[in-house]
Amino acid sequence: MNVTPTNRPKAEGDGPTMTPPELSHVDKAGRARMVDVSAKPTTVRTARAEARVQLGEALARRLQETGGVEKGPVLPTARIAGILAAKKTADLIPMCHPLALDHVELDFAFEGDVLRIEAEARCQGRTGVEMEAMTAVMVAALTVYDMCKSANKGIVIQQARLLEKTGGKSGRWTSEPSQ
Amino acid sequence: MNVTPTNRPKAEGDGPTMTPPELSHVDKAGRARMVDVSAKPTTVRTARAEARVQLGEALARRLQETGGVEKGPVLPTARIAGILAAKKTADLIPMCHPLALDHVELDFAFEGDVLRIEAEARCQGRTGVEMEAMTAVMVAALTVYDMCKSANKGIVIQQARLLEKTGGKSGRWTSEPSQ
Amino acid sequence: MNVTPTNRPKAEGDGPTMTPPELSHVDKAGRARMVDVSAKPTTVRTARAEARVQLGEALARRLQETGGVEKGPVLPTARIAGILAAKKTADLIPMCHPLALDHVELDFAFEGDVLRIEAEARCQGRTGVEMEAMTAVMVAALTVYDMCKSANKGIVIQQARLLEKTGGKSGRWTSEPSQ
Amino acid sequence: MNVTPTNRPKAEGDGPTMTPPELSHVDKAGRARMVDVSAKPTTVRTARAEARVQLGEALARRLQETGGVEKGPVLPTARIAGILAAKKTADLIPMCHPLALDHVELDFAFEGDVLRIEAEARCQGRTGVEMEAMTAVMVAALTVYDMCKSANKGIVIQQARLLEKTGGKSGRWTSEPSQ
Amino acid sequence: MNVTPTNRPKAEGDGPTMTPPELSHVDKAGRARMVDVSAKPTTVRTARAEARVQLGEALARRLQETGGVEKGPVLPTARIAGILAAKKTADLIPMCHPLALDHVELDFAFEGDVLRIEAEARCQGRTGVEMEAMTAVMVAALTVYDMCKSANKGIVIQQARLLEKTGGKSGRWTSEPSQ
Amino acid sequence: MNVTPTNRPKAEGDGPTMTPPELSHVDKAGRARMVDVSAKPTTVRTARAEARVQLGEALARRLQETGGVEKGPVLPTARIAGILAAKKTADLIPMCHPLALDHVELDFAFEGDVLRIEAEARCQGRTGVEMEAMTAVMVAALTVYDMCKSANKGIVIQQARLLEKTGGKSGRWTSEPSQ
Repeated sequence: MNVTPTNRPKAEGDGPTMTPPELSHVDKAGRARMVDVSAKPTTVRTARAEARVQLGEALARRLQETGGVEKGPVLPTARIAGILAAKKTADLIPMCHPLALDHVELDFAFEGDVLRIEAEARCQGRTGVEMEAMTAVMVAALTVYDMCKSANKGIVIQQARLLEKTGGKSGRWTSEPSQ
Repeated sequence: MNVTPTNRPKAEGDGPTMTPPELSHVDKAGRARMVDVSAKPTTVRTARAEARVQLGEALARRLQETGGVEKGPVLPTARIAGILAAKKTADLIPMCHPLALDHVELDFAFEGDVLRIEAEARCQGRTGVEMEAMTAVMVAALTVYDMCKSANKGIVIQQARLLEKTGGKSGRWTSEPSQ
Repeated sequence: MNVTPTNRPKAEGDGPTMTPPELSHVDKAGRARMVDVSAKPTTVRTARAEARVQLGEALARRLQETGGVEKGPVLPTARIAGILAAKKTADLIPMCHPLALDHVELDFAFEGDVLRIEAEARCQGRTGVEMEAMTAVMVAALTVYDMCKSANKGIVIQQARLLEKTGGKSGRWTSEPSQ
Repeated sequence: MNVTPTNRPKAEGDGPTMTPPELSHVDKAGRARMVDVSAKPTTVRTARAEARVQLGEALARRLQETGGVEKGPVLPTARIAGILAAKKTADLIPMCHPLALDHVELDFAFEGDVLRIEAEARCQGRTGVEMEAMTAVMVAALTVYDMCKSANKGIVIQQARLLEKTGGKSGRWTSEPSQ
Repeated sequence: MNVTPTNRPKAEGDGPTMTPPELSHVDKAGRARMVDVSAKPTTVRTARAEARVQLGEALARRLQETGGVEKGPVLPTARIAGILAAKKTADLIPMCHPLALDHVELDFAFEGDVLRIEAEARCQGRTGVEMEAMTAVMVAALTVYDMCKSANKGIVIQQARLLEKTGGKSGRWTSEPSQ
Repeated sequence: MNVTPTNRPKAEGDGPTMTPPELSHVDKAGRARMVDVSAKPTTVRTARAEARVQLGEALARRLQETGGVEKGPVLPTARIAGILAAKKTADLIPMCHPLALDHVELDFAFEGDVLRIEAEARCQGRTGVEMEAMTAVMVAALTVYDMCKSANKGIVIQQARLLEKTGGKSGRWTSEPSQ
């Protein structure tokens, strides 16, 4: 994979806006609402998201040295925070539907002084699990920030985004290959 | 995988690592803990954080046109989600101390197709409110993502970071000017 | 102030009490319990509830003038608070079953100096969503109170009640027509 | 960085308005915010609120007969729900400040077929506890509704309001005597 | 009832450990995860758990005298706390799946100076409800401790354990008969 | 309005009782309440509690072998669950006062096939932190149970109790040495 954070993806719906992008959580009168999904079929839904946390070299080295990715307390704590946060998604994001998550998993990898966090979520439901995967990586990233801010307050959480989703009417979506 | 996030700021503490950065939430035996702050004085603490959400042009235009920043339902919903999330910080971030927030405020501004979210938090306490400001912008950004993902799943939340903090033993900290 | 909630519905079960009204959340020994619903069929359930908030004339005028019902920040905030509260119903009401809401929507209308809040909830489940609709209107009303109490502490939340429910063994129920 | 959120809309409702009631949770630009209370002194604050639940005669009789107000499971459950809800106030009401409650108490009394619920809350803080007392009576009333709705779906929660508050800059406030 | 807390069950898996016990919440690389249950069938699941709270004689006598098990406020409060806690299980236990409980019930019995708490939970789901029943008895026991600690700080919560589970691939499990 | 809750039942247990243990969370009329602590001085409060989890030999051996107490994922997960639960104490235990924890720490030690969990909590407040320490060990024990139940459903959580408290009017209390 070859990710260059400079070149942003074309926004879907770019181009002549005869048909402005549809915001499903907003009704015709401009009011926020939790969309009615009761008529949608229950299907298996998955989503993968990532966040990239730029730690700085000294900190990245230290996290890797103190027992490696899995053994020091920072990453296990971030993993658990991410899993718990995925279960709180509907409590955090106002228009999100509550759903019974079947699976959440987080992974960490160092790429230079960047810590890459990836989350995968899965459920059988009438709505997707994109927000659960996004919330998991964001709260894991915040936890890394919290546990490392005494060493470096300048940590930047960058490039948090959806990587892929499957299931539902719109089927599979994946971020563009060059990302 | 070949990832090169080129434009990173220098991490604080970079350079010769005679003195490895200290991680206050980890004790000598490598265990996570909620640090003892009972001996710290109570002072006024403030923090400001930002997140930048790259919406894509069509979506950015639409959000601005439908009543401007403050009138459409997306930004007010994101603002409220951010304020509520700031109050949940200690429930989301495992090693964070609970604290009684005196003030939270979020602001939005468009810069091209990027929505910039800034949060300010304040309390009188024995620990800082950096995580409250960071959590507010992150959950506000997630809410924007949620409410706009039907129009553009490729939205990227980028550049979430602390801008400034004041109060406490370490006093004022500010991110570097060129950022 | 002269509030006469005259048009109260006859309580069901009024009249000669050969058969005292049944309290399903209380067992034979007088103990509270979360009723067993595992044998009930899953059906689509809906409920509508309302609360009437008597604001006083100056405040009602102000809320209507500042952009109308949908644009000022009070009503959008109350709407979001109501939607989030509907998702917390089982955490607030001890004997309520947790359920996966498919839809929640709130609406506001002014009737003189009274703000009428109506909520509609929907799910596919083994128990009804009456409490979700009721909780949504109540917390929306509390939010209106909170945001307006600096202008008028004497606001009265009156006439909060169920309007209609459908689904389940008992089918459709509706409050009396003249209401 | 030089961010000027220039494109703020004019606050709606700006213009000549003799003495509009002040909404402290709304700033000049019409945005919701959690007001800054960090400069306010810490004082003892109290509040009392009530809700009146019209049960219908058969139900009111039954609740009183089955062990009286305090012994049947409905009122103790409502009392506990109210106390727990008071502690959740800042999580339910978006612009409420979190505060450390020193005391919450609920009382019940029958007046004909009406159940009167009164709550008293107390804290030492920089903001009042009106919302905590209001939330306590509202959630207690919802709990009564939930536990009795199998007997009477037409129960009406009416007349929920603040009775009295003390402490803070504005001092003592009390609802009108004839109420 | 004839319960003798002295003889603990043999731990399953005791004896020659050719095949070490499997920890399903830990993956091959030693990482915690919320197991994927999306392929499991939905079946009715039940679980029963108990906790034994040793109160001391004076306290046990007092709790029994003041209206008996069901009438004084300690046990009703503990019952409600246990029911509410069962609904929070997935928020408390990091690797637990959220599930829609169909039923929770708690019972109390005195055996000398020991208060025995038993909880039963039930759902239709893809994972078991053992943790919900365990969490219910534990939080009920904590509530008893809290409400009685002014009388006896030396209360010991002992012998909290699963009694029985049914449903799922592994079917029925029961603790040994002599218990 | 003239409300006299006259028909309160006599408090159960009234009548001659030599020196009954005092239950501070219960008022004279037998009602549960959150005690008023607003007149108590703010002092530093600490508490230590323990729970002993009998794992069975095979499981105890396995937990110790897979990287030792601190490195496998079970104990770090239990530690974080315990710290987060300490912060939720007032949400779980109905009559507990919310308080701003200054410090929480958990420790694990194996004693044969028993895992001993100890928690220490500290705050500056008007009420003690006993329940926070107790809740931390209980939820940590539940988490161990959850993560190990696929290997041994017969795990018993035993001997959960307070070890010591300091601060407040009653000063230092410690469990008896032989315990």
